[in-house]
Amino acid sequence: MDNREEVTTFELAIVVPKREEKDENPRDDCVECFVRELMKVGLIVEIVQGISDEFIKLAAPLETLGRAAAELQIMKLTHIGVDLRFDWDQEPAFVRQPDGSLFSWCERFCCFQHLIYRIVNRTESVITLTVGSIKYQWEPNESLLEMMKSEGIVKQVFPLHDEAKRKLLLRNWALNLLDFTWQPIDDIHSYFGTKIATYFAFLGMYTRWLFFPAAFGLVLQMIDLGAWQILVLPLFFVFIISWAVFFFQFWKRKNSALLARWGINYSMSLVPGCKPSGADISSLPESHMEPESKMVTRRPLEKDKSLQRDEWLGLLQKIRNTAVVVLGIICLQLPFELVYAHLYEISESDAVKYALTVLYLLSIQYYTKIGGKVSVTLIKYEHDKGEESSADSLVYKVFGLYFMQSYIGLFYHALMHRNFTTLRQILIQRLIVSQVLENLLENTLPYLKYSYKKFRAVLQRKHEKGSSLRKSIRLGSRVEKEYLKPSYTASIGDEFEDGLFDDFLELALQFGMSTMFACAFPLVFCFVALNNITEIRADALKLLVMLRRPVPRASASIGAWLNIFQFLIVMSICTNCTLLVCLYDQEGKWKIEPGLKAILIIEHVLLLVKFGFSHFVPEEPAWVRANREKNVAQAQDICSKQLLSSISSFKARKVD
Amino acid sequence: MDNREEVTTFELAIVVPKREEKDENPRDDCVECFVRELMKVGLIVEIVQGISDEFIKLAAPLETLGRAAAELQIMKLTHIGVDLRFDWDQEPAFVRQPDGSLFSWCERFCCFQHLIYRIVNRTESVITLTVGSIKYQWEPNESLLEMMKSEGIVKQVFPLHDEAKRKLLLRNWALNLLDFTWQPIDDIHSYFGTKIATYFAFLGMYTRWLFFPAAFGLVLQMIDLGAWQILVLPLFFVFIISWAVFFFQFWKRKNSALLARWGINYSMSLVPGCKPSGADISSLPESHMEPESKMVTRRPLEKDKSLQRDEWLGLLQKIRNTAVVVLGIICLQLPFELVYAHLYEISESDAVKYALTVLYLLSIQYYTKIGGKVSVTLIKYEHDKGEESSADSLVYKVFGLYFMQSYIGLFYHALMHRNFTTLRQILIQRLIVSQVLENLLENTLPYLKYSYKKFRAVLQRKHEKGSSLRKSIRLGSRVEKEYLKPSYTASIGDEFEDGLFDDFLELALQFGMSTMFACAFPLVFCFVALNNITEIRADALKLLVMLRRPVPRASASIGAWLNIFQFLIVMSICTNCTLLVCLYDQEGKWKIEPGLKAILIIEHVLLLVKFGFSHFVPEEPAWVRANREKNVAQAQDICSKQLLSSISSFKARKVD
Repeated sequence: MDNREEVTTFELAIVVPKREEKDENPRDDCVECFVRELMKVGLIVEIVQGISDEFIKLAAPLETLGRAAAELQIMKLTHIGVDLRFDWDQEPAFVRQPDGSLFSWCERFCCFQHLIYRIVNRTESVITLTVGSIKYQWEPNESLLEMMKSEGIVKQVFPLHDEAKRKLLLRNWALNLLDFTWQPIDDIHSYFGTKIATYFAFLGMYTRWLFFPAAFGLVLQMIDLGAWQILVLPLFFVFIISWAVFFFQFWKRKNSALLARWGINYSMSLVPGCKPSGADISSLPESHMEPESKMVTRRPLEKDKSLQRDEWLGLLQKIRNTAVVVLGIICLQLPFELVYAHLYEISESDAVKYALTVLYLLSIQYYTKIGGKVSVTLIKYEHDKGEESSADSLVYKVFGLYFMQSYIGLFYHALMHRNFTTLRQILIQRLIVSQVLENLLENTLPYLKYSYKKFRAVLQRKHEKGSSLRKSIRLGSRVEKEYLKPSYTASIGDEFEDGLFDDFLELALQFGMSTMFACAFPLVFCFVALNNITEIRADALKLLVMLRRPVPRASASIGAWLNIFQFLIVMSICTNCTLLVCLYDQEGKWKIEPGLKAILIIEHVLLLVKFGFSHFVPEEPAWVRANREKNVAQAQDICSKQLLSSISSFKARKVD
Repeated sequence: MDNREEVTTFELAIVVPKREEKDENPRDDCVECFVRELMKVGLIVEIVQGISDEFIKLAAPLETLGRAAAELQIMKLTHIGVDLRFDWDQEPAFVRQPDGSLFSWCERFCCFQHLIYRIVNRTESVITLTVGSIKYQWEPNESLLEMMKSEGIVKQVFPLHDEAKRKLLLRNWALNLLDFTWQPIDDIHSYFGTKIATYFAFLGMYTRWLFFPAAFGLVLQMIDLGAWQILVLPLFFVFIISWAVFFFQFWKRKNSALLARWGINYSMSLVPGCKPSGADISSLPESHMEPESKMVTRRPLEKDKSLQRDEWLGLLQKIRNTAVVVLGIICLQLPFELVYAHLYEISESDAVKYALTVLYLLSIQYYTKIGGKVSVTLIKYEHDKGEESSADSLVYKVFGLYFMQSYIGLFYHALMHRNFTTLRQILIQRLIVSQVLENLLENTLPYLKYSYKKFRAVLQRKHEKGSSLRKSIRLGSRVEKEYLKPSYTASIGDEFEDGLFDDFLELALQFGMSTMFACAFPLVFCFVALNNITEIRADALKLLVMLRRPVPRASASIGAWLNIFQFLIVMSICTNCTLLVCLYDQEGKWKIEPGLKAILIIEHVLLLVKFGFSHFVPEEPAWVRANREKNVAQAQDICSKQLLSSISSFKARKVD
């Protein structure tokens, strides 16, 4: 159907230890057996010998993928605009990707996962497999790959770069420096999946929009308006807030336009298409018959009641966890940050300041690590609905830490001491120096790690072979090089989030830094805009060259980050107002008495509660949603076949 | 299937003038012809002679309704949880109402409308019909009822009360005074339709929740805490705001639970099921073939572009209209209100105050009428998507008027003069006196109108018959009595809204009055709670006894009013803060300097913009939504038949 599908590009690699050349009984060999099974499933297998490991490269013909997708019951957009269970025989009914292939990278990855983990012992008895001289037991109905992973035979399963597409992207995107913010979003989507493409779309649009405040800030810096100067800062403040509000509204619109272009039906996404386990599929036939009787009586029955109870219990747990995090931040982090800021303020020599900063940076590193671990532990006790919801929950919690860490010092200098010189210094230091450094580190650290790993592998091999071989050993295969590259992981652990967490965190902190203190330093937007232009290319290079290909994620919005950005806008309304008061009130004439102060604080806290509350309690009761989801699933179950054939015949009629 | 369906309850009445007893040519008589056509359609017709009019009462067997519903392609919830086009042959596939009937009152009304307006001249030539001695031309393809309406032969078409159900509701609901806030919501839903039932569900829940602040307010009034008294008002303020936030969040949950109970699929409600015109049905077959080719290319093509342009044009129009309304309110109404409040403040004798109030009330009446008319005219120029959207737009505009009218005087007394005695006086006056009076008027005015109309009809008849008949003429038939009752219309005109507008307006103004000035007068919540308990019964009585049965509306949320209530909460955070400042700042020590004042004003305006903006620009571009809707419609079109038969057979298998 499509030429590109017929070229075998290997998309997944499995790493196993190098075997001795001659095995006495190849039938019993664990890896041999695994390869045989993989081929039986319909995958194309190529084995590459590395220096100290062996790599099983996997590719799949379209039909193998299609059958796996049908088994997984992946929901896929059809030509009539509704998502239906995928069926290989009715394949023409489904919408293709913008690049002409049937499955997106995320769907292909799901199918691969399903295919390789599905290899189970179908016999009644235990099969004994050997690796070298060690024997392993393969229990009936146990997944072979799971067993090999837990026994340490399989070291890693990771997605492979597609060299042709990677080089094309490198040329058109990462090294295409002439177009400042333009990016081939569709190609990024088809190569990295939805979540990463959404990040780059957001970054591009944000950078484009940043040109407006950057230009305004530059003009403010250069032109002196004399007597009108006093009106300029409030004007700038109003402009920045309106700009931010408009930007995020238009981003939401752009996001849903992107979803439409990529054929993702957002309303249907509550039925996740990508689940590696077959548990919920096998349980379908039972659940399928009983809810009918319930529907007729139409009362919130026992099941609804228990759903309601679960919902409230989950809410209480969430509140408790949030309380733990908030208390931890306020009681542990806040005093620490204030002490640092205070010492920094009162210390006179630069040497002391530097020493303090080094000490601070070291300790904050540990604190953040611990905070991240605590958050992950807390989230495991929450009954969240799926991966992405847990990831969002983690993002909120960890962002709290970073928020305190990044801004409390700035607040201290701005509000307590009205020391705008230090404030500007720190802003410049954080935004320019640290962001440039971070960009450099982001790109060099993976390379150093990779070099070190390569060096060690070569060294080890040399050592094993002894001094008999004098010629230098080189990494021959591309797959081995990729194996040695670091993967795209978050600094707070890889359980719920990948490297996107760090990239979004950087953006959010930068956004907060620039908007919350906009009145103190309008020029900051120029630096931010410049920084983001380089950020686009640096992130692209990092993903394409420095790292392994990341595992694709299906989520198609920026998720929790959107709410964090909105929160930062509200915060910046408050902080800029305070900054303005501080700036214009040099003589201290506008004293706010304690009573008025208390009332203003109450007001702002209530406003925050008012607008934050809706994020805590969902508008739709859980049992209503559960019923609806169940119904939709049931409908799809019954009618899929009929719908599909009718759509197919409809299409066929149209072609004639 | 169901016994209740087989009793013929007449649900619609058409009023025509009384004919002379002997007509020379009954075949040409317009009314005769109409009645014949009605019977041909399958309706059960009964003609009742009134004093000066003749009433054609209509009932429909279930099958007639079913076939009409199938022709109208009403979307209806099926047992598998998705909405599908109604099909009379597959009737068991559709979910029945909680009371066991197949169609809801709203659907039945739609079908009736369709049946009676569908009677067109199917011949090629003009048919001449007579009424008395006047001849009328019935053009080919013209609706007979439309013609008769425009010629004045049909005076009115209105829904009839169902005596059995009405009496039951009267006993269980309106006169059931022992249960303060409990209401038979399901029965109300099946008798009055979704929109009115939603209103009463909201009113009941609101009244139930009001008991908390009422109790708190009462306790505050009765107990003196001595030195702690100063902390009590801020505490009350925080409590009220949290209460309001919680209440509306839980109302949203309750609303979606109600929707689930009544079998309304909210996500599908963008395909309105109830459209009296057949225009969009006849255009379906064409629109059905062409969009397919577009979907494959997947670019925002010409049509998307024009949709985008339309969206922005519509937005600009909306902004212009809003600007007109806001300017009108600020430039015309605000000075007027301030003059009145000022004169009231400085006038010393009570007589002058009363005279002023009378003058004010008279002029405000006119102003509101004009405002309503202007709003309706403005809305007609907006390209809104359907009836309910226009109604919402009207609600926002007219509420602006009433907001200014109701609160500006209160603000003036509270903030300008810090005159809390006058403020409390006006609050009591508005809340208690005016609401009690309004409740009385609401119920007596319709009765007086009805009595007057009855009296006039009898008088006219007597006059016509001369003094030959001395015995008193009485209204014999129930249908004539209902005809003379006033209908449930809004005070601002009946084009987009019905009487619910006035009822919701009363609630919203009351809510604003009590929460915005909560700190000035905590006891107010007691009065509000008492008032609402009577309001429930008074409104029930009004609907059941005083008025004609209202035309049912399909909308299933409180619509624009929810946003208005949310806005009032934000407003009340600000006003209560100001009140607290005024209350505690008797010595004027907490002077806010102009600079700080300006900054605080900027902050609050920006906060409002931040949270108001999302109501202006929808999150989803119009073209994305249009595509989705088109796709869904198409899907339903193709697959309805297959889906239905499979669901039916599925159901049948289950029954065996």
